[in-house]
Amino acid sequence: MTYAVAVRLERGLVFAADTRTNAGVDNVSQFRKLHFWRRAGERVLVLLSSGNLAVTQSVISLINEQLSDDENRPSLLNVTSMYRAARLIGDIVREVRTVDGPALEASAAGFSASFILGGQVGDEPPRLFQIYPEGNFIEATDDTPYLQIGEHKYGKPILDRVVRTDMRLNEAAKLVLLSYDSTLRSNLSVGMPIDLLLYERDALDVQRVRRINEDDEYYRKLSAHWAKALRTAVDTVEDYPA
Amino acid sequence: MTYAVAVRLERGLVFAADTRTNAGVDNVSQFRKLHFWRRAGERVLVLLSSGNLAVTQSVISLINEQLSDDENRPSLLNVTSMYRAARLIGDIVREVRTVDGPALEASAAGFSASFILGGQVGDEPPRLFQIYPEGNFIEATDDTPYLQIGEHKYGKPILDRVVRTDMRLNEAAKLVLLSYDSTLRSNLSVGMPIDLLLYERDALDVQRVRRINEDDEYYRKLSAHWAKALRTAVDTVEDYPA
Repeated sequence: MTYAVAVRLERGLVFAADTRTNAGVDNVSQFRKLHFWRRAGERVLVLLSSGNLAVTQSVISLINEQLSDDENRPSLLNVTSMYRAARLIGDIVREVRTVDGPALEASAAGFSASFILGGQVGDEPPRLFQIYPEGNFIEATDDTPYLQIGEHKYGKPILDRVVRTDMRLNEAAKLVLLSYDSTLRSNLSVGMPIDLLLYERDALDVQRVRRINEDDEYYRKLSAHWAKALRTAVDTVEDYPA
Repeated sequence: MTYAVAVRLERGLVFAADTRTNAGVDNVSQFRKLHFWRRAGERVLVLLSSGNLAVTQSVISLINEQLSDDENRPSLLNVTSMYRAARLIGDIVREVRTVDGPALEASAAGFSASFILGGQVGDEPPRLFQIYPEGNFIEATDDTPYLQIGEHKYGKPILDRVVRTDMRLNEAAKLVLLSYDSTLRSNLSVGMPIDLLLYERDALDVQRVRRINEDDEYYRKLSAHWAKALRTAVDTVEDYPA
């Protein structure tokens, strides 16, 4: 499995994806699931993927093939809005489904591929989409400013309670990592390192992207402190009455 | 869906189950999923159920039919250990599967039924089991003192971090309710009221069982306080560095 999450804030976007893939617990590998494309000063597009690795890699390959094609054909680097970018990726997902879907659906694996696409194109505000295996998609709004794909349940309660769109990027990044901490403790199919990208509104470039390993000093402190803080929080709640 | 959980402590057992069942989001009902049998001074057996309601109700009906049968036939009220009780229920699950399994498996619904069985028989210490749809089962130990069935992921991180076998029953009941609070916020298929049962070691009777409604004063306080305590805990964690 995978756990990937992105938050849409007034000040920008925060993206994270783990890097574990597995075909059974005895076949675990590491693959990047956070990809981005940019044209500095003009656009930034970030894509998080989850699902069948063969499918998501095909989608990335086709996105990249479009870039080197004729400049007049639509590609992530020339579409005029994030909405058009989401449509483009949706079309690519459908193309891969046409090719690989029948064989996958005839097997136990099935066709599975979900994506989170976020970024900013020109004068548009930053936008965030979730693209389904069917190629259709939804957009994050102020009501629900974060999107998750993959193994999302363990890390959802903390986001549900604390995320606000007026947060600073660094605070939202902390929350996203807390949500990973809960997931990593409870589910082996999600694994370090985590790729984390903070996109500041109107930067129109990727400046803050980092891979967080198990020995990352900040993450270790966060994880240790959180275990204690949570126990303290539990202690402040009154016990069930006798 | 369902969320049911039980904790095995040195001082006894804590059980909880929600009461929501649904056949689609437009067909939601309320059914008890916590059942118990007792012979005061001799034994207490508590069963939590999750899965297809027709299946779990059949299992309960067959358990009760055995009680009124010939006293010499094994039943929950005459087996000599909790292990034997788990075997008995496993056999009943298999019986129901023989009858209803093929038709269910031919449909999208499938055969699903999981149980948590806990209690105490005579001089044995309290024991706790999880019974699978296949009728086999596992027993909780000090390494993993709690068992969950149904929609378990949202409420797992808090239990993973805080449950200890030397807790008092009232403290464990608080934790169990915090684990419900996370689940109820994030998943509509789990709903109030919650049936909660605290079993004190060697009591050999059921004295503390309660249905917790939405307007339960303790639960409301716990839920409100927890939202605040969690936000405070998040605030004590250092933000992601710039």
